[in-house]
Amino acid sequence: MTSKSIKIISAEVVDLRVPTSDHLLGSDPFHKQPDYSSAVLYLETDAGLSGTSVVFTVGAGTDWICHGIRDLAQLVVGTTLDDFSSAPIGLYRRLVDHHQLRWLHDGVFRMAAGAVLNAMWDLWAKSVGKPLWKLLVDLDPEFIADCIDWRNISDALTRDEAIGILRERGPGIEQRERELTQRGPKAYCTAGWLGLSDAEILATIRKLQGQGFDSFKLKVGLDSEQDVERIRFMREAIGPACNLMVDANQYWGIEEAKCHIERYTPFGLKWIEEPIARDDVLGYIELAETFASADFGFACGEHAASPVIFKQLLKSGAIQYCQIDAVRVAGVNDVMAIILMAAKFGVPVCPHGGGIALCNMIQHYGMWDQIAVSGQSSTQLIEYIDFLQDELEHPVRVRDGCYEAPTAAGWGLEFRPEFIELHRFPEGNVWSSREPARTGALFEVLNESQAR
Amino acid sequence: MTSKSIKIISAEVVDLRVPTSDHLLGSDPFHKQPDYSSAVLYLETDAGLSGTSVVFTVGAGTDWICHGIRDLAQLVVGTTLDDFSSAPIGLYRRLVDHHQLRWLHDGVFRMAAGAVLNAMWDLWAKSVGKPLWKLLVDLDPEFIADCIDWRNISDALTRDEAIGILRERGPGIEQRERELTQRGPKAYCTAGWLGLSDAEILATIRKLQGQGFDSFKLKVGLDSEQDVERIRFMREAIGPACNLMVDANQYWGIEEAKCHIERYTPFGLKWIEEPIARDDVLGYIELAETFASADFGFACGEHAASPVIFKQLLKSGAIQYCQIDAVRVAGVNDVMAIILMAAKFGVPVCPHGGGIALCNMIQHYGMWDQIAVSGQSSTQLIEYIDFLQDELEHPVRVRDGCYEAPTAAGWGLEFRPEFIELHRFPEGNVWSSREPARTGALFEVLNESQAR
Repeated sequence: MTSKSIKIISAEVVDLRVPTSDHLLGSDPFHKQPDYSSAVLYLETDAGLSGTSVVFTVGAGTDWICHGIRDLAQLVVGTTLDDFSSAPIGLYRRLVDHHQLRWLHDGVFRMAAGAVLNAMWDLWAKSVGKPLWKLLVDLDPEFIADCIDWRNISDALTRDEAIGILRERGPGIEQRERELTQRGPKAYCTAGWLGLSDAEILATIRKLQGQGFDSFKLKVGLDSEQDVERIRFMREAIGPACNLMVDANQYWGIEEAKCHIERYTPFGLKWIEEPIARDDVLGYIELAETFASADFGFACGEHAASPVIFKQLLKSGAIQYCQIDAVRVAGVNDVMAIILMAAKFGVPVCPHGGGIALCNMIQHYGMWDQIAVSGQSSTQLIEYIDFLQDELEHPVRVRDGCYEAPTAAGWGLEFRPEFIELHRFPEGNVWSSREPARTGALFEVLNESQAR
Repeated sequence: MTSKSIKIISAEVVDLRVPTSDHLLGSDPFHKQPDYSSAVLYLETDAGLSGTSVVFTVGAGTDWICHGIRDLAQLVVGTTLDDFSSAPIGLYRRLVDHHQLRWLHDGVFRMAAGAVLNAMWDLWAKSVGKPLWKLLVDLDPEFIADCIDWRNISDALTRDEAIGILRERGPGIEQRERELTQRGPKAYCTAGWLGLSDAEILATIRKLQGQGFDSFKLKVGLDSEQDVERIRFMREAIGPACNLMVDANQYWGIEEAKCHIERYTPFGLKWIEEPIARDDVLGYIELAETFASADFGFACGEHAASPVIFKQLLKSGAIQYCQIDAVRVAGVNDVMAIILMAAKFGVPVCPHGGGIALCNMIQHYGMWDQIAVSGQSSTQLIEYIDFLQDELEHPVRVRDGCYEAPTAAGWGLEFRPEFIELHRFPEGNVWSSREPARTGALFEVLNESQAR
């Protein structure tokens, strides 16, 4: 069966939420009680295959994204896989440049557009029996260049430069593919969550070290004293040779960030993640200049809402680590552009993982980047967390501190059906039995500043 | 009745769409067939007053914003006006910093949050019988400063500096208020829509000149030859003393923008509006440096999605005209911050109008800015269009090229009930009689690039 005959006949969207706030998993200064959630899209076809994608969120608001995906999915129901795969930029433009919807900008709109695009990429990879990364590795440089919207980024990277980068990586590509399928991209893990005690953090570190990890992250932001103590504690626990990174989740203003970060200089940190607002390009430039002689770099991207923001951060040298996210921008097409820009400016791609199933997606980008774009693995690190992996048919796996290369066709985003049924919001059993404060009106955490 | 006893008892949200695409009104290179639309929020109270706000959009996607407003409105139903008016930052934080919803970012989320905030400001102004601008003018500098989220903007403007600016404008405030209530903020109008013939444009200019206008705008972007001819034609039609501005609606990349703009230098333009992407701060800086010796400035803001983007554009000197929008950011609170930043950096506030009822809102910001913040009117220009004003109970009016100061309490956003009923989407008579291509699946305009 050729892809031409595969037709999308319907779209199902599931609002999937897991009550992780019961245990404060993944909480940070802003996201005080996240319920890890996902807008899950299934594009059903007449060939028995299903194109699947997820958009990770943290609870309330998942319905906003589901609403958007349902609306946009109308644009692909009735089309064929070949309509898409012959030139993916066509669907990208129909979505992102829709003459009325583009008014909605980034955020919910771009995330919903990404969901539709990612499901089509999934379907394509499944139809040819390849993991997503392998589909990308096997595409011609010109074809990849034609998937990208160049309008607003050509000042940083032209189409010809992108093709040049990909061609330059051609020699040796088979060997890198062999190596990375044997030992996948290197991973790192957050060991220092805000709510944990020193003893709990130490136990986490030792467990991760037993799995071969040598790179660890720590949440900071609220209290400078405590943060410094915790950084010192973790540095001593892991020794001077391991990588230690801190993440402030955008909690500071620029001047505040400088005060906090100044105190971090003695600890040999690898990076400071999201010190300030996600869209403050000039702020990142200022921080990079202020700490130009420090031995750490700045990292962000998980909340960068468009390739234009990435373009500015990369072109200006403001960030030293490019943390692509799998579901914040408009799917594979946008992420390919960002990874190519990072390669041009020599900034390591260190994708953001976690949440629900993000690691399952970013491992494909890590593979593609390290095999075909940057063409090297020495500076790249991919975030890893084992959360909820038992609920997926193709869980991510690590060995010796590295991802195992994914082998399932597509993204490998299939959840166990029982898991989906149980966590549908608000009708799944996990939610229908809860008090209305968690499911009825918006679930609020009132603290002093919020409660006035 | 004091405000304390006014309680919000319910919220109604209307998806209102006008089939303006029948006549290509408001079309530009990206928004090919806009249907001017509005998500209209009514917060009903137990006091007979209703807090009203609108979010302007261009057709499809209005339902996305309605969905969001309905969700967020849960946070105010059951609260009192006094809960809000005693410290508006409280509701701002409950919305914008909601610990789960903030994941949704700008775009749909911030616009929906703005709708709720603006409706509460409307209710407050109505409860004290003042137009919105007068409510703002009468607030203490400290109170205004306390309405603003300073976390991400203090590097550009501190709370103390904002209070200082407002205090400095104190002397003379009564006189400026008297003057501006007699002769409101100066207006300008777009005469050069893309689809119009030279004769039609000339007729429009003569009509506007008859109404006292001396400042005119022209849409450009698609074809450099035609654009230059049109600019020349308009400059000759209006003479050298009038203001002429061009608007490219983000259509160009940076290098492309330079080529186009280079050809505009001989025509004495006042500003070039939105030459490049809405979030390309470094691009705006580059354009400002490239054309530093030109006699025009750059303008943008209508699509700037957050105060952080405005902060960067203002602080860096990248834009010479600050085009606040009334519904893109999170309501009065965000716009106050932006107007105060513009005042600090000496950038004229020239709000974006048009659409449905935007002019009705921005006239209040223009009044507040010119009376109490910048404290002067000589460099400020407010966009004006008379579209749909007959459908409002308190239409905006111009006289001698200036807005007439609004006198109705609140924003003055009340539509005629018949207009609302007729244009509800998709059940109103205007829509229910139409072919499904316009109301069923997403309304698409396929051209060569989009249709692949």
